[in-house]
Amino acid sequence: MLTLQAPLEHAQAQHGQRTAVIDGERRFTYRELYERCRRLAGCLSSLGLNAGDRVALLAANCHAYLEVFCGAPAAGMVVVPLNFRLAEPELITIVRDCRPRILISDRDPGALATLVERVVMLPDEYETLLQAASPMRLPRLDENDLAALFYTGGTTGLPKGVMLTHRNLVANAFHKTIACTLVQDDVYLAAPAMFHVAGIAPLLGLIWLGATIVMVPSFDPELCLDCVEGHGVTLMMPVPTMVAAMVDAQCARPRNVSSLRMIGHAGSPISNEAIERAHETFKPAEIAQFYGATETSSIVTCFRDEGAAIGSPLLGSCGRPVAGVEVRVERPDGSACEPGEIGEITVRGANVTIGYWNQPEATASALRDGRYHTGDLGRITHEGFLFVVDRLKDMIVSGGENVYSIEVEDVLCQHTAVREAAVFGVPDDRWGEAVHAVVVVAPERAPEHTALEAMLKHHCRSAIAGYKVPKRIEARTEPLPKSGPGKVLKRALRKQYLRQHMETATEET
Amino acid sequence: MLTLQAPLEHAQAQHGQRTAVIDGERRFTYRELYERCRRLAGCLSSLGLNAGDRVALLAANCHAYLEVFCGAPAAGMVVVPLNFRLAEPELITIVRDCRPRILISDRDPGALATLVERVVMLPDEYETLLQAASPMRLPRLDENDLAALFYTGGTTGLPKGVMLTHRNLVANAFHKTIACTLVQDDVYLAAPAMFHVAGIAPLLGLIWLGATIVMVPSFDPELCLDCVEGHGVTLMMPVPTMVAAMVDAQCARPRNVSSLRMIGHAGSPISNEAIERAHETFKPAEIAQFYGATETSSIVTCFRDEGAAIGSPLLGSCGRPVAGVEVRVERPDGSACEPGEIGEITVRGANVTIGYWNQPEATASALRDGRYHTGDLGRITHEGFLFVVDRLKDMIVSGGENVYSIEVEDVLCQHTAVREAAVFGVPDDRWGEAVHAVVVVAPERAPEHTALEAMLKHHCRSAIAGYKVPKRIEARTEPLPKSGPGKVLKRALRKQYLRQHMETATEET
Repeated sequence: MLTLQAPLEHAQAQHGQRTAVIDGERRFTYRELYERCRRLAGCLSSLGLNAGDRVALLAANCHAYLEVFCGAPAAGMVVVPLNFRLAEPELITIVRDCRPRILISDRDPGALATLVERVVMLPDEYETLLQAASPMRLPRLDENDLAALFYTGGTTGLPKGVMLTHRNLVANAFHKTIACTLVQDDVYLAAPAMFHVAGIAPLLGLIWLGATIVMVPSFDPELCLDCVEGHGVTLMMPVPTMVAAMVDAQCARPRNVSSLRMIGHAGSPISNEAIERAHETFKPAEIAQFYGATETSSIVTCFRDEGAAIGSPLLGSCGRPVAGVEVRVERPDGSACEPGEIGEITVRGANVTIGYWNQPEATASALRDGRYHTGDLGRITHEGFLFVVDRLKDMIVSGGENVYSIEVEDVLCQHTAVREAAVFGVPDDRWGEAVHAVVVVAPERAPEHTALEAMLKHHCRSAIAGYKVPKRIEARTEPLPKSGPGKVLKRALRKQYLRQHMETATEET
Repeated sequence: MLTLQAPLEHAQAQHGQRTAVIDGERRFTYRELYERCRRLAGCLSSLGLNAGDRVALLAANCHAYLEVFCGAPAAGMVVVPLNFRLAEPELITIVRDCRPRILISDRDPGALATLVERVVMLPDEYETLLQAASPMRLPRLDENDLAALFYTGGTTGLPKGVMLTHRNLVANAFHKTIACTLVQDDVYLAAPAMFHVAGIAPLLGLIWLGATIVMVPSFDPELCLDCVEGHGVTLMMPVPTMVAAMVDAQCARPRNVSSLRMIGHAGSPISNEAIERAHETFKPAEIAQFYGATETSSIVTCFRDEGAAIGSPLLGSCGRPVAGVEVRVERPDGSACEPGEIGEITVRGANVTIGYWNQPEATASALRDGRYHTGDLGRITHEGFLFVVDRLKDMIVSGGENVYSIEVEDVLCQHTAVREAAVFGVPDDRWGEAVHAVVVVAPERAPEHTALEAMLKHHCRSAIAGYKVPKRIEARTEPLPKSGPGKVLKRALRKQYLRQHMETATEET
């Protein structure tokens, strides 16, 4: 029924004079936002793009990001937000997979430029094209048309393009609006990177309501707090590491943040202590936790007002399913777990992806019986609170980014000094989890430890995103412990690391 | 994706201990509501009903109404709420059209009993069956399955069954929740008759949130105000006649109504004066207006806080389209009107009916190009406010009920004393519009005027609902004024009535 055209048209008709976007010195009303999206549509059309063609987007948060994210799908194209933290070889793999005809970029696209018909540079070239274009009359679309492709890592080591339809994104907008009780007077700080679905998808509900979106190009706690004070921000959804940094910045130099009503966080584990500090620092704003995935267009569960739960055993839960989203914890045979019983978290709703781009097998494996199988293990209490207890996927969540171990292991093993590698997550105060590697080296080829670690990190950095590069690399010469079928016993390695780490911590005190 | 099972399951899992329903002395938690719906499902199944079978419901507002409305569709059946104000011949026509296998009724079903396999009487027999039944494991349904049939009058004089799917009702629940910013702490007074979609559909969003629903069997201003005071009601959605009666009752004997945050009204025209009186009486509660139709599962537009618009030319508008619903005012050729230009109001969204039961022609006429054509004439301002200015359909809205003129004219003409009849609406302080008839009588057969009017009203009452019976009947012997093609010029008759009526009013002052 409805597509991404709907919130744009709705907002220009009802909230035409209201401020849609504040981006540094630039401000656009909803009438202007709609006009710019239609100009972009006209521009893409005049460049020869047709319905279904992909438009890649490589940029920091800015007003143009929102315009391309809404405008390209509104014109019938498919937007592909690219993670600018990835290394060039990773981006090349993605672009080769989805073959966008155009790349809109705010940075040197490097080798990507050779893989697309045209690169449009932000901000100047983009602006010139927009001003020259005629606003396009938006075509008729179907709600099941593809709107966006978001790439995530994969357990096979290859990235997967999560296909989100117009309906997926519209449904998620409603779910988020209801879960957060979004209203027209909200002022939203768009700080987390918009190449993540959780950074961009909430904006659709805000557009529908005629709320205001304040853009910051990248997360900086001082800048964010200044924005809160300067623009009367009511809502923000940082990742936990950002929450901690904002607490420190606010304690060091307090601003007037009384406009804040909600600080949501998602994307990685957070300690109860961090929740308590945020609650103390920003009250009466509520601290809220969300759980979601790219495959669910973001929001699945929500824990409203964690501050009120301090001291309760519920703290640490990621909350309860939001209206419109069904969560079921399943046994391996597909039956539903009893309350308290641990199983795989599965999700159903109009927000769930239709599958992975060109990967029917991965799609069939993730979408079974109408439910997205998250690969996370969890349990639900009698009161409906979901606790994520572990992951089925061999994945690390560091600073809100997912890191698939196999990808890092593959890169490490490509180095001639490495015979075997095991990568896993270890607790980290700043990042939630840190990427940790244990490598087996060929003694004859390996330099002494410090030089080896630096060499391997450098090797990784050329192939994969910085956040995937192990923070520490332990070298050994004896083989890794393995189970009968030859599977590396990472659990044992992790346990060993924690024991040593805790002993060290004890020695230090 | 989601069906009416979703809000029930969601609420029992998340809000199991919260109060779902207060109905006089009876109270049910969400766990109990879910259990009762599943027992009803088990009961219907054990009575031999299959997926798609119709279950008719003839009753005043009560907890069982909500159970049947949710439970029968959750079990795969189609619920048919019957308007108990209709005359028996009208109900018979409807039941013959949709052929329910079961009727659940709180009153003597009369001849309807012969048209169904079984009548289940409320409350005792229903309760006995429920207690004896096993809670059914709800079957797998599709969101596009039919959930409910709501009958409305028709321009042909025959009632039409509006088919609403699970998806229609789920979409409407989200639209209503966002438009009214419904929250968990809301306490909703279900006063308008639940056989209207606007009386029952909002409850689904409230269930999802875990809010509380207070039932009253029929509208009584004293009882409603007592409920507001006694249960801390925050929201109600009366029709305008009820608003006026509540204002009078509250002025005569003030209650503590400070819990009220919104009084919505819909279903018929309301005077600006009535809005102002309600605003004065119930402030700080906001007075909000809604516009909708059975075919749109209810809500289409919303005017939040009319009190703040007093003195503005916007007052009198029915508000702006809610998020999720698209409204377009169209020219006869299907193109969109400019702002301010009058055309037919059309509606698009996931809330729009899939058509009329067994009436493909009526469906094709109402649903054109993906839009429901309301038959109302309106205009939209530059700011997006919709004004309903007239109706294309020959229909009167009296006390929130739609009356199709042709139906009343047909009944009048069946009387031997009547040669011709024209029925139209005239302004009425209490009912918004009153049904008015002008009849041409055969002088030799007609008694003097008072006896004639009484006789014709009695004749009507035996065939059609009381609210459709003309409040006044003017008799004449000369033929009705007609246009070239023989169409009665009702506009001229109405003008004549208004002129006379205004003269009378002037004489009286």
